[in-house]
Amino acid sequence: MEQRVSLITLGVADVDRAKAFYQRLGWTVAMDVQETVFFQAGGLIVTLWGRAKLAQDSGVVDQGGWGGVTLAHNVASRGDVDRIIEVARAAGARISREPAETFYGGYAGVFLDPDGHPWEIASNPGFELQEDGTIRLPG
Amino acid sequence: MEQRVSLITLGVADVDRAKAFYQRLGWTVAMDVQETVFFQAGGLIVTLWGRAKLAQDSGVVDQGGWGGVTLAHNVASRGDVDRIIEVARAAGARISREPAETFYGGYAGVFLDPDGHPWEIASNPGFELQEDGTIRLPG
Repeated sequence: MEQRVSLITLGVADVDRAKAFYQRLGWTVAMDVQETVFFQAGGLIVTLWGRAKLAQDSGVVDQGGWGGVTLAHNVASRGDVDRIIEVARAAGARISREPAETFYGGYAGVFLDPDGHPWEIASNPGFELQEDGTIRLPG
Repeated sequence: MEQRVSLITLGVADVDRAKAFYQRLGWTVAMDVQETVFFQAGGLIVTLWGRAKLAQDSGVVDQGGWGGVTLAHNVASRGDVDRIIEVARAAGARISREPAETFYGGYAGVFLDPDGHPWEIASNPGFELQEDGTIRLPG
């Protein structure tokens, strides 16, 4: 199995509400069909789909709540972290961790989307953020 | 906020167990520091970290179980779907959906990693899989 991820599907209670939230963050929808919203996010696809349908499709039982997955969006500077956290706050996100220094020597904050999916917005000088938005581990 | 994902962190009960599972899938670790395992997965990073630490770091309460996130790994052919599902099965994954035709006209199966994180392995002729492993929505 190659080391790559093609799609991240976020199960949501209300597809329209989630779609509107990501649009308020500045995201542009590429496809919206059958109550499924697709965003082209760099070289992968972020999808919003009904959480009950996703649970059934994934063959898992959904007891609600957070499930051990956190996404991160790395940026070039601390100012970018602050700026995006404010964009998220204005879009209606709950800020679950206000921007601050991190234990790994970076600077980051975390917001929760309307369905509680956490996004860490991070400036991490240890990971090389490339021109095309991809990120590279050292070495 | 740009449309891209830098890291996907999977919270796990036992980092060594999770690491060994992904290695059995054929993945190569790029960094392993402070009980955190990093894989370079195309243009992003997949990280394995203790689930309790990730919950605290993300500012969320963890009630256990699945949380509405499913990852997909798209491949070029139906044979690749079958092959990777068998690799996952041999690596100890539970197959939560055996490979079969999908409602969207593709072919896919789903395995659960040792911590219950679902991976759909999919052949979807509607999404263009590129030479470098990235995927593109139509249009």
